Amino acid sequence: MIDAIRAIVGPSHVLEGADCAGYSRDWTGVYPSEPLCVVRPANTAEVAAVVRVVADAGGAIVPVGGNTGLVGGTQARGEVMLSLERMSRIRTIKPDARIAVVEAGVVLQSLHDAADAHDLIFPLTFGAKGSARIGGCLSTNAGGSNVVRYGSTRGLCLGLEVVLASGEVLDMMTELHKDNSGYDLRDLFIGAEGTLGIITAAVLKLFPKPVGYATALLSAPDLGAALKILRALQAASGGAVEAFEYMPRNFMQRLAQHRPDLTVPLKTGDCTIMVELGGLDMDAPLAETLASLMEEGLVLDATLAASEAQRSTIWAIREASAEIKFTQLPIVDTDVCVPLEKVALFEAEVQARLAELDAEATDITVAHLGDGNFHYAVYPTHDDPAHLEAVRAVIDGVTVSLGGSISAEHGVGRSQLATLARHKSPIALAVMRQIKGALDPGNVMNPGKVVP
Amino acid sequence: MIDAIRAIVGPSHVLEGADCAGYSRDWTGVYPSEPLCVVRPANTAEVAAVVRVVADAGGAIVPVGGNTGLVGGTQARGEVMLSLERMSRIRTIKPDARIAVVEAGVVLQSLHDAADAHDLIFPLTFGAKGSARIGGCLSTNAGGSNVVRYGSTRGLCLGLEVVLASGEVLDMMTELHKDNSGYDLRDLFIGAEGTLGIITAAVLKLFPKPVGYATALLSAPDLGAALKILRALQAASGGAVEAFEYMPRNFMQRLAQHRPDLTVPLKTGDCTIMVELGGLDMDAPLAETLASLMEEGLVLDATLAASEAQRSTIWAIREASAEIKFTQLPIVDTDVCVPLEKVALFEAEVQARLAELDAEATDITVAHLGDGNFHYAVYPTHDDPAHLEAVRAVIDGVTVSLGGSISAEHGVGRSQLATLARHKSPIALAVMRQIKGALDPGNVMNPGKVVP
Ligand SMILES: Cc1cc2nc3c(=O)[nH]c(=O)nc-3n(C[C@H](O)[C@H](O)[C@H](O)COP(=O)(O)OP(=O)(O)OC[C@H]3O[C@@H](n4cnc5c(N)ncnc54)[C@H](O)[C@@H]3O)c2cc1C
Ligand SMILES: Cc1cc2nc3c(=O)[nH]c(=O)nc-3n(C[C@H](O)[C@H](O)[C@H](O)COP(=O)(O)OP(=O)(O)OC[C@H]3O[C@@H](n4cnc5c(N)ncnc54)[C@H](O)[C@@H]3O)c2cc1C
Repeated sequence: MIDAIRAIVGPSHVLEGADCAGYSRDWTGVYPSEPLCVVRPANTAEVAAVVRVVADAGGAIVPVGGNTGLVGGTQARGEVMLSLERMSRIRTIKPDARIAVVEAGVVLQSLHDAADAHDLIFPLTFGAKGSARIGGCLSTNAGGSNVVRYGSTRGLCLGLEVVLASGEVLDMMTELHKDNSGYDLRDLFIGAEGTLGIITAAVLKLFPKPVGYATALLSAPDLGAALKILRALQAASGGAVEAFEYMPRNFMQRLAQHRPDLTVPLKTGDCTIMVELGGLDMDAPLAETLASLMEEGLVLDATLAASEAQRSTIWAIREASAEIKFTQLPIVDTDVCVPLEKVALFEAEVQARLAELDAEATDITVAHLGDGNFHYAVYPTHDDPAHLEAVRAVIDGVTVSLGGSISAEHGVGRSQLATLARHKSPIALAVMRQIKGALDPGNVMNPGKVVP
Repeated sequence: MIDAIRAIVGPSHVLEGADCAGYSRDWTGVYPSEPLCVVRPANTAEVAAVVRVVADAGGAIVPVGGNTGLVGGTQARGEVMLSLERMSRIRTIKPDARIAVVEAGVVLQSLHDAADAHDLIFPLTFGAKGSARIGGCLSTNAGGSNVVRYGSTRGLCLGLEVVLASGEVLDMMTELHKDNSGYDLRDLFIGAEGTLGIITAAVLKLFPKPVGYATALLSAPDLGAALKILRALQAASGGAVEAFEYMPRNFMQRLAQHRPDLTVPLKTGDCTIMVELGGLDMDAPLAETLASLMEEGLVLDATLAASEAQRSTIWAIREASAEIKFTQLPIVDTDVCVPLEKVALFEAEVQARLAELDAEATDITVAHLGDGNFHYAVYPTHDDPAHLEAVRAVIDGVTVSLGGSISAEHGVGRSQLATLARHKSPIALAVMRQIKGALDPGNVMNPGKVVP
C-alpha cells in the first residue's frame, strides 16, 4: 500500500518512522499519534487516488490540517495520516462577489492577509489562527470570538469539495447563496471531523472590513448584569457587537500570576468582560452606553481602548487563556454551551456541585458569553482518572440539565466520545451511525472519532 | 391500517374519498392528489404512532403543510397524506432570547403576528404567508424576498423535532447558537421536503423589528447598473438592504394589462427594481444614494414611498407576480440561481437561445436579484410536451453552464426530478440516495420526491 501511495504523491511526500515526529504530537500533547505513514498530496486528484488505494487495502485515513484541534481528532494509531499542508493555494478572491476560493490547506492567517489586501475580512478568528487550516476549521466547524456577529465556520461557507471514502470527488464548489437542489450535503461534511470524507477545497464568504473597532474592558457585578450590558450594547450599536468575552475572578488572578507583563487597565472583580464593536463611529455608542450603565450600577468600571496598542493589550489579556490554562495539571477542560438566560444558573450550579465533590479544587474559566459558550476548566486536587471523570460529569451533567451542549465549538474527536455516548439521545446517535455507515461502510475515514 | 390510524387520531381526523377534496388540489393545480386517506394528528406522539402503523403496513406517507409548494412535493397517489394543520400552537416566545418555539403546523402569518406583539419579527416572508406552515417552510427551506438580509429558512432555525421513518422521535429542540456535538442532522432534514422524516416542531430565531423601512421603486438602464445600485445601497446603509427585486419590461407590461388598478408611480423601462432598506433613518441614505446614482446615469427614475400606503402599493406590484404569471398557459416557470456577477450574461444567453427555439414565445420574469435568483417564466407558442421540455432545458442549461442551481428556493419535489437527474452530479445524487436509503430504507417518507 505504501508503495502505491508513493507512486501517487512522490516518495518525498510519504514520511515514515522518525520522519513522522512533527505530526505525532497534537497541540494538546494528550493525543500522541503513531501513524503508519504521513502522506502529503499536492492536489485533489492525489487525495482521491490515495483514498482509493487505502480503501482497497482495507486501511484507514486520519486527515490532518494544522493539528491544533483540542479533542484528539487527529490521533492516528496505525492509520495513514493525510496532511493537507501542500494544498495551500488561495485560488481566487472575488472582491465584488465577496468570495474566496481556497484549497483546504490554507492557513487561516493567510486567508486573513489575502482578504485584507482587498479591504475585506474572513471573520473567523481564534488563538490558533497562525497554524489552523481551512479544512480543519471547516471539519471542526470552529467558532472563536466573533461568532456572536458572524456565526461559526459553517455560516461562512458557500461551497465545498470533498473526497469521499470511495475515492470519488464530490464537487459542491458553488458560489451561490441559494440552492435547494436536493439534500444539504455541504453541512453534513462541515463539522464531521474527517469521518465522512476529506475536505479538499471551499468557497468562503468574505465581509467588508469594519471601518473601525471600539474595544473595552469592563467590570460588572455579575453575569446577570453582563447580559444586560450585552443587550444594551446590541441595541445601541444596531447589532455591532463582535466579541463579548467573560473572564471571571479566577481567570484574572491566574493571569496576574503568569503574565505579570500584561497590565490590566482597570480594577477587576468577579466578572470582567471584554467587548468589541465593529463599524463606523462605534466609540460614541460604546462610551455612552457604558457611562449610562455605570450610573445604573450595571458597570462597575470600564476602560476604552484609545489606541490600537491599547486594543492589542485587551485582546492579549483574553487570548492568554490557552497559555495560562495549561500551567497546572491535572486539568479538566470543557467546551459547553447553555442558553443565554441560563448562564448564571449554570455557573452557580457547577460551583456548588464541584464544591461538594472536591472542595479544594480551583478553576479557570473563560467564556464566549455572547454565545453562552463556556470553557469551564477545573484543576482537581488529585489526578485519579475516576475523579477527573467525576469532575467532567458534573459540568456535563449541569449543562445537559439546562438544555445545553457538551461540545459547543471544539467538536467530539476522541475526547468527547464517552460524554457523547452518555448524554446525546440514542436516537440521534443511531442516525449518526446510519449516516456514517451509508457514506463510509468500510470505516476508512478517521475511524474511532465522533461516532461513539 | 386505516382502522389503526383511526384509533390513534380519532375517527373524525381520518378523511377518505370525497372528504379529501380540500387536500387533493395543491396551489399550482398541476399536481392533483389521490390520497388513500388524509390524517390530521394532534401532536408528535400521534404523528409517531401513525408513522409506525403505516411503516409496518408497508405503506407510505406524504406530509402536507399549507399545500402552497410549487414543485408538486405534496402530490399523493395512494399514500397517506399527513396534515400538520392541527399542530398549530406557538408554544412560547422568549423575547430576551429572541426565540419562538412552535409546532410545525403554525401558519407563517400567525408567527409574524405573534412576534410582532413583542416588537420582534420572524423575517421569512413571501406571497403565500397566509397559508404556508412552518413545517412546509422548513421542509422546502423557503426563501422569499428578504433572503439577501436574513438568509433562507435554514438560517432562521435553531432546533428541530422530527419523526423518523421508523416512528422514532428525533429531538433536536435546542435553543443554542453553538453546538458541535456530532453531525449536523438538523440541516439534513431542513430542505428534505418530507423525504427523510416529518418535522413536528422547531425553535426559530426572531429579530428586532427594524425601526423603520425605506422603500423605493426605481428604473435602471440595465442589470449591470442594477448591481451597482445594490452595492452602493449596501455600502451606504451598512448592509441594510432587505429586498432588491427585479421586474423587467415584460413583467411591467403584463402587470399593466392584468392589474390596471395598481398605479405604477414612475415611468418604467427595461429594468424596474423594488428596493427596501430596514433600520433607523434609512430614508436619507436611500434618497441620497439614489440621487447621486441618478447623476451618474445608473438610475433613470425613482419614487420613494412617502407613506405606509405607498409602500404597500410598491409591495403589491411586486407580489402580484404569482397571480399575473398564471394568466396565460402553457407556461414554463423556473426557479434558478446564478452567481451575481453572471446575471446579465444569464439573461442575455437565455433570451438569445429562446429566440432561436421559439421566436414568438413571450416571457415574464421576476427575480430576487440580490440573491441572483430568477423566476424566469416563458409562454411557449405551443404546448407540445417535448417543446416545453426544450424551453426548460434552455434555461436550465444556461444556468448550469454559469455555475448556477436549477432549484434556488422552491425545492425539487416532483417537478424538478428529471432536471435534477440531468444536471446534478451523479456523485451527489449517489450520496443523496445513500442517505435516503440509510434513514428511510422502507421508502415510507414521501416516496418519488427529491431523489431521482
Ligand atoms: C490556542 C488555541 C485556541 C483555540 N481557539 C479556538 C476557538 O476559539 N474556537 C474554536 O472553535 N476552536 C479553537 N481551537 C481549536 C482548533 O484550533 C480548531 O478546531 C481548528 O479549527 C482546527 O484546525 P486545524 O487545521 O488545526 O485542524 P486539525 O487539528 O488538524 O484537525 C481537526 C479535525 O478535523 C479533521 N480534519 C482536518 N483537516 C481536514 C480536512 N481537510 N478534511 C476533513 N477533515 C479534516 C481532523 O481529522 C480532526 O478530526 C483552538 C486551538 C488552540 C490550539
Ligand atoms: C403565491 C406563492 C408565493 C410563493 N413565494 C415563494 C417565495 O418567494 N419563496 C419560496 O421559497 N417559496 C415560495 N412559494 C412556495 C411555497 O409557499 C413555499 O415552498 C412554502 O414553504 C411551502 O409551505 P407549505 O406549508 O405550503 O408546504 P407544503 O406545500 O404543504 O409542502 C411542501 C413540501 O414540504 C413537505 N412538508 C410539508 N410539511 C412538512 C413537515 N411538517 N415535515 C416534513 N415535510 C413537510 C411536503 O411533503 C412537500 O414536499 C410561494 C408559493 C405561493 C403559492
